[in-house]
Amino acid sequence: MKVLAVAFPGMTLIDLVAPLQALSVIPGFESQIAWKTRGTVSSDAGISVVATHSFSEAWVEPDVLFVPGNTNALCKLLSDDETINFVSKAGQGAGWVTSVCNGSLLLGAAGLLKGYRAGCYWYTREQLRLFGAEPDSARVVFDRNRATGGGMTAGVDFGLALLGKLAGEDTGRLFELLFEYAPEPPYMVGRPELAQAELVQAAENILQGLMPKADIVAAASKWKR
Amino acid sequence: MKVLAVAFPGMTLIDLVAPLQALSVIPGFESQIAWKTRGTVSSDAGISVVATHSFSEAWVEPDVLFVPGNTNALCKLLSDDETINFVSKAGQGAGWVTSVCNGSLLLGAAGLLKGYRAGCYWYTREQLRLFGAEPDSARVVFDRNRATGGGMTAGVDFGLALLGKLAGEDTGRLFELLFEYAPEPPYMVGRPELAQAELVQAAENILQGLMPKADIVAAASKWKR
Repeated sequence: MKVLAVAFPGMTLIDLVAPLQALSVIPGFESQIAWKTRGTVSSDAGISVVATHSFSEAWVEPDVLFVPGNTNALCKLLSDDETINFVSKAGQGAGWVTSVCNGSLLLGAAGLLKGYRAGCYWYTREQLRLFGAEPDSARVVFDRNRATGGGMTAGVDFGLALLGKLAGEDTGRLFELLFEYAPEPPYMVGRPELAQAELVQAAENILQGLMPKADIVAAASKWKR
Repeated sequence: MKVLAVAFPGMTLIDLVAPLQALSVIPGFESQIAWKTRGTVSSDAGISVVATHSFSEAWVEPDVLFVPGNTNALCKLLSDDETINFVSKAGQGAGWVTSVCNGSLLLGAAGLLKGYRAGCYWYTREQLRLFGAEPDSARVVFDRNRATGGGMTAGVDFGLALLGKLAGEDTGRLFELLFEYAPEPPYMVGRPELAQAELVQAAENILQGLMPKADIVAAASKWKR
């Protein structure tokens, strides 16, 4: 089970880690963490990870391609030739094409979601249409061999659900218990539909600056999906 | 806000990442990822992280000391002099002494939980008593300046709850929405109380080999808490 994950500077680290934590229990699991060059890759959580392979060294036909998300770092990456070309090729050779958060926009920019339903971070979900994908508000979305999660913490649900698909539901169930996944959100406001209007507005005010929708439009125009 | 996190080879990566993802949004956040030596530290999720500081270089009085957990790697570490001495000193100087999963056993071995209520991974929760702590089955446990979470995925709840304590509940609420934390466990069996007896037995059969309780008893005897 060859899991190829893209890591990029400034990425949202839980997007990358929660899914790989779940997939890593599959018998025969191997991973490559790929970026333009090998070595240290920063994240937004005060922790850097190690890219084990450069784009040119990475598997061409992984069983799973996985892409994490982020705010501004992701938005800039959407127009980056080297990254989009790599994701596009890896996705064409992959058994499963997957993402969490707005990593699905990167898959979209790489032409991998045209005609597919996909999940995304709530703030940029509608922008999936720019890449020919059908936005789906579910926390985990499966459409043929595409598996995409909602924002950030959705990676836990996504990882366990994908584990269930790849290794069987009994294994998914066993690891939900082993991962002690009986969540208790402290405030119960983790989706816009659950939160008061003022809180959603406060969140949107922050996101507007971090995730310029103009960057997404520019990428869609560049890649003409 | 100086957050000092211990990273150790083989650690459970989501234990480390979920809490730091939440704490990293606190204004003035700085982190040190500490191990015996600087450099690459492996995890159990197919991803390695970078230890930015050796034990001797790390902050002596961090605002927050954080310790992740694991199965066998953690159990061995409980008897490791260099690690226990470091955690003990850092904990004595820290504003908050914190952990997720069975990282609380490490805090216990370091003498930091004597007379405190604490959370832990479900399988080893009762072993906290060996270190003079009072096991608490809550997903997030606060007792004075000790904050301890349940197993693995509890780090998300723990991180947001601790963020609320440190930066105010309004901030906690805002980031619960920004982190899109509206979980949907695929199987709803994430605690022994929620799972069928056969599933709990299957999980215990696995954990028995991975987490020898004899290692924990040996550590408690060594450190005589």
